[in-house]
Amino acid sequence: MGSSFGRYFQVTTFGESHGAAVGVVIDGIPAGIPVDLARIQQELNRRKPGVSRFVSPRGESDEVEILSGVSHGKALGSPIALLVRNRDVQSADYAEIRELFRPGHADYTYFKKYGAPPQPGGGRASGRETVGRVAAGAVAKALLESHGITIQAYTVAIGGIHAARVDRDFAEKDPLRCADPDVSARMAELIDQARSDGDSVGGVVELTVDGVPAGLGDPVFHKLDAALAWAMISIGAVKGVEFGAGFQLAAMRGSQSNDQISSQGFLSNNAGGILGGISTGQQILMRLAVKPTSSISKPQATIDIHGADRTIEVKGRHDPCLCPRICPVAEAMAALALADALLERKATSIP
Amino acid sequence: MGSSFGRYFQVTTFGESHGAAVGVVIDGIPAGIPVDLARIQQELNRRKPGVSRFVSPRGESDEVEILSGVSHGKALGSPIALLVRNRDVQSADYAEIRELFRPGHADYTYFKKYGAPPQPGGGRASGRETVGRVAAGAVAKALLESHGITIQAYTVAIGGIHAARVDRDFAEKDPLRCADPDVSARMAELIDQARSDGDSVGGVVELTVDGVPAGLGDPVFHKLDAALAWAMISIGAVKGVEFGAGFQLAAMRGSQSNDQISSQGFLSNNAGGILGGISTGQQILMRLAVKPTSSISKPQATIDIHGADRTIEVKGRHDPCLCPRICPVAEAMAALALADALLERKATSIP
Amino acid sequence: MGSSFGRYFQVTTFGESHGAAVGVVIDGIPAGIPVDLARIQQELNRRKPGVSRFVSPRGESDEVEILSGVSHGKALGSPIALLVRNRDVQSADYAEIRELFRPGHADYTYFKKYGAPPQPGGGRASGRETVGRVAAGAVAKALLESHGITIQAYTVAIGGIHAARVDRDFAEKDPLRCADPDVSARMAELIDQARSDGDSVGGVVELTVDGVPAGLGDPVFHKLDAALAWAMISIGAVKGVEFGAGFQLAAMRGSQSNDQISSQGFLSNNAGGILGGISTGQQILMRLAVKPTSSISKPQATIDIHGADRTIEVKGRHDPCLCPRICPVAEAMAALALADALLERKATSIP
Amino acid sequence: MGSSFGRYFQVTTFGESHGAAVGVVIDGIPAGIPVDLARIQQELNRRKPGVSRFVSPRGESDEVEILSGVSHGKALGSPIALLVRNRDVQSADYAEIRELFRPGHADYTYFKKYGAPPQPGGGRASGRETVGRVAAGAVAKALLESHGITIQAYTVAIGGIHAARVDRDFAEKDPLRCADPDVSARMAELIDQARSDGDSVGGVVELTVDGVPAGLGDPVFHKLDAALAWAMISIGAVKGVEFGAGFQLAAMRGSQSNDQISSQGFLSNNAGGILGGISTGQQILMRLAVKPTSSISKPQATIDIHGADRTIEVKGRHDPCLCPRICPVAEAMAALALADALLERKATSIP
Repeated sequence: MGSSFGRYFQVTTFGESHGAAVGVVIDGIPAGIPVDLARIQQELNRRKPGVSRFVSPRGESDEVEILSGVSHGKALGSPIALLVRNRDVQSADYAEIRELFRPGHADYTYFKKYGAPPQPGGGRASGRETVGRVAAGAVAKALLESHGITIQAYTVAIGGIHAARVDRDFAEKDPLRCADPDVSARMAELIDQARSDGDSVGGVVELTVDGVPAGLGDPVFHKLDAALAWAMISIGAVKGVEFGAGFQLAAMRGSQSNDQISSQGFLSNNAGGILGGISTGQQILMRLAVKPTSSISKPQATIDIHGADRTIEVKGRHDPCLCPRICPVAEAMAALALADALLERKATSIP
Repeated sequence: MGSSFGRYFQVTTFGESHGAAVGVVIDGIPAGIPVDLARIQQELNRRKPGVSRFVSPRGESDEVEILSGVSHGKALGSPIALLVRNRDVQSADYAEIRELFRPGHADYTYFKKYGAPPQPGGGRASGRETVGRVAAGAVAKALLESHGITIQAYTVAIGGIHAARVDRDFAEKDPLRCADPDVSARMAELIDQARSDGDSVGGVVELTVDGVPAGLGDPVFHKLDAALAWAMISIGAVKGVEFGAGFQLAAMRGSQSNDQISSQGFLSNNAGGILGGISTGQQILMRLAVKPTSSISKPQATIDIHGADRTIEVKGRHDPCLCPRICPVAEAMAALALADALLERKATSIP
Repeated sequence: MGSSFGRYFQVTTFGESHGAAVGVVIDGIPAGIPVDLARIQQELNRRKPGVSRFVSPRGESDEVEILSGVSHGKALGSPIALLVRNRDVQSADYAEIRELFRPGHADYTYFKKYGAPPQPGGGRASGRETVGRVAAGAVAKALLESHGITIQAYTVAIGGIHAARVDRDFAEKDPLRCADPDVSARMAELIDQARSDGDSVGGVVELTVDGVPAGLGDPVFHKLDAALAWAMISIGAVKGVEFGAGFQLAAMRGSQSNDQISSQGFLSNNAGGILGGISTGQQILMRLAVKPTSSISKPQATIDIHGADRTIEVKGRHDPCLCPRICPVAEAMAALALADALLERKATSIP
Repeated sequence: MGSSFGRYFQVTTFGESHGAAVGVVIDGIPAGIPVDLARIQQELNRRKPGVSRFVSPRGESDEVEILSGVSHGKALGSPIALLVRNRDVQSADYAEIRELFRPGHADYTYFKKYGAPPQPGGGRASGRETVGRVAAGAVAKALLESHGITIQAYTVAIGGIHAARVDRDFAEKDPLRCADPDVSARMAELIDQARSDGDSVGGVVELTVDGVPAGLGDPVFHKLDAALAWAMISIGAVKGVEFGAGFQLAAMRGSQSNDQISSQGFLSNNAGGILGGISTGQQILMRLAVKPTSSISKPQATIDIHGADRTIEVKGRHDPCLCPRICPVAEAMAALALADALLERKATSIP
């Protein structure tokens, strides 16, 4: 059951990194909405490894196939199944570490839960699983865009270097998806340095949603921010999430943090566009804490599946910073949560 | 549908602040587990207003009644319904502001979604709704404790003052649930000052879970941390959540952040006790950003339901800081998420 | 989880026959729809024992209270909780048989599943549980009626006596809810005879839904007929369900059974108003097999909870035929399934 | 959402008859249970067209592929995705009737709900959709068999000819899956006659489950019989379902219908192995009403998508009786419902 998300716009992903394929089934989708193969492919390409020196050139082609639910470019109303075959599977890379738990990885906990030793490439816990999310997210984005809702995620901090401004067009083209043209180069240097040390760095991704009408969200447990937080923390490597002023609210007074209202609209947006779990009509704003890539070649202490002390050096090409990879996944997850809220509103709107 | 949480241990809360009652139905509960009325009442008393000068003395008695599902102190296996009548309903307090949207409140968004003007006491968006959560959480806690799992939430920051250490016994008795005996008095002064200014302050609540076995959590969308984040952000006033080192991970390197492993156990806990969405067996650690109370008596700009500019002063006695109130609710929500994970493990454990 | 029904219009019932109360929580309900206490009470009165000599005069008053979700006669959009206190609890009636499994009852299976001995009055398995269904059904009926959809169930066979025609007004007033004025008296005689023998009789209930628009139902697993069958078989004592020509279709040819179509509409209704799981716009027609009341005073072989052979005579006043009691419950369940289908259509309708 | 079934053992099917593929995703499956490709293929072969003159020789090869969730013949605990490519797609067969609603088919209702004209081969409403059910059912059967539970469905009536006894081995080999060797030939003649008339016939399928322990089922809405009825009526062409003595109970007295109990076990099985929605430990017995195949070449009145009166003759090779095809699908659906009940029991069993 853990692989399903959404109540009205319901997606179920499947697939392990080095199995036959990864994919997703989307159910609950309104008949007639446009579903464009090229658009789905384009979103997958945005997460494609090999686009820069900052994402590992694993050589996946990630060609998506629509298995069902679409005819002549429109949703039939039946489940849409999307499939991407795994290629370039090189289990040999992983053979030597099959019995060692990689620190920071899910190897240990999957072993404890499922009883299986570390899977090549991470198995279900691999970032490869996000292919299904991004593919489904592309369908959700198309639905949202037909309602004027757009989503963008970009990098605002890496290893202690912070963006001072947000240039959305720059972010879309920057290999790090950095929002600030003035700091992107410094971030890149920092990453190169970490890589040459056999190390990795963390960062912060910011995500905005524009064009959201007031009234989306389903209190009290499916509040829009609760659903978005759930969606974001379900992404591997995301260890924190905040809305609007977030953790800074802890040091504020109510007279500062409350977003006062005028007949021209809200006077500020410390709430991040959501009050009481329902969208205000302002921009939705959230930030995600991204931990440093767990796979590093520096020697680390670990144990093997028999419990013996060992040292591990995780070889292979890994992204030294996950922020650029997480941006499209975060957008996809936000799209899924918002599409769900949109259909909830349709179902329960005042007759 | 928004009022249900959990897939295996499923709770549905109901009730508005100034309606007849608030309550909860719990379904999916194993027959035979102990359900103690006194224990549920005790948890409700922990959130009870009037216990100190920092929580509003609304005079609710919050006497809980078990309507179903329990016989001779044990769960029958059928749904457990718990009811708390609303008393001391003083709609008059709110009459004058029925047409004004209170900044920082859900008034505006509920109006946009449900078409109803601001409800007395906040209606469904009131903190009163958490009675059902805490009552259900008490049942979940009993289930967890029979597995050796305990949960505690406490205040670690208020208005910029930070706890330097955690004294659990102190926190349980402190009116602010502050973890650090050395700063509690200063926090209290800060709050008193804010109140005398007709203002409020925010803070940070930390929550720990001890005794969790390795192997709880259901990848990929019902990861334990994703479920906990969902649970926490569903609490009104919580605007951010982080696990382990959280947002500090953004400035770290992988060689620092990875929790290395020895035959004696993990060497650190930057992950907060969860890897790949599954518990490691370490302490689960998370922090919540709590915004300042929205209800303040300082004049604020707002509009009425007709869109006209107005000024509002929210009268009545309000908690100047929500942290002490949120602690028991956060514990309850963590208990619900963990009870769900516990039953999921039972259902899918290796045969 | 077993006590929830519906995906969009979701109800959760709670309560045992001799506990404090029975009730229901409805979630997912559109804000603004009319919710009338008197209407709910009226539906409960239709299932009220003591209205005739054919239903046991247990003296329940079944006064319903709205706990939440309604203000000024309209749904707020939050969960609607409805409560009916249990009164007239006479466990003494049952004391003597606490250790015996009553044949045809759920005593034995509840003992096997939940480990509890037979509960006074049947516990959760009692017909008393249907109070919550009927109360929620009244809300669903009001929603459906605002869309022109009406539901009626009536008795068409008892103990081998069959109705030859359907007089809807007569059925509504007849103590047996018999559809045919010409056979009602004979059915009553048959029942009286069975009762005087310490025995009971079975029957058939027919249910119709009028005014259903074409297009309701959610293939492939939530087909409208599948949801209705699920709903009906979830009623205690209902052991079979058929749509349209039902089991008679087994002996037909396709050229007979297919409902041909003309520009004036369908030429027959062997499908019972549903094709491929979606409503055709014709009348929905189904029949339910109702087993004889399990509680009979005739001596029967049974065992006690220790496995020893015993003889049981189930004393107390029991309905000798369940058909009149099941009619309002069947209507309620049909209303829940249709309300769910109605909201599904709203959520997924062509944009 | 309509394409998912099950709460603990959750399956989601996808695919249209003439799209790229059909398949299924199974989630919630315990890690470690055996998943054998050959076994899944074998179950698919049992539903394979072309095995006899009674099922249409469409030439599908139905070769199944495991996309995920299985390694070395065992479930990983992650979702199992199973895929079968569609081949032999001959839309030309259908071209001429694209604008006509076939009587007895879902063409009309799909058009009303989804806005799409009749799909080649039936689209999502095609029997082809059951491939996913049977594939998932094979996995569920393996789980059940490891608990000693076995399922068999067979034909007991066709066009008014009834089986007088049940020979299970014969049924498994008989092209009609007829349970009675003495009537199989007469049934075959009847079918041949119907086919030569351009017509079709209905029948009755009986399904038994052996080895079920007492205690499976989740009252009150997910009673085992309610779940099974839901499962069965979700199969196209099944228009009725009954348990145990079923509709015959309507003419019985309680003293006949109650299954009395002795220390040696139940003395009869009129309840069909389920009481109060929970298995008794006896054989589960149910019967399904199967309507005659809707596709017949005899001329029938219909309308086109513009509403004009037309006559239709549905060409192509169609099964003149659906019973043999429905048997393996009914077994699969029963397996899914029982696997769900089995996991529910694990999750909620007395600690």
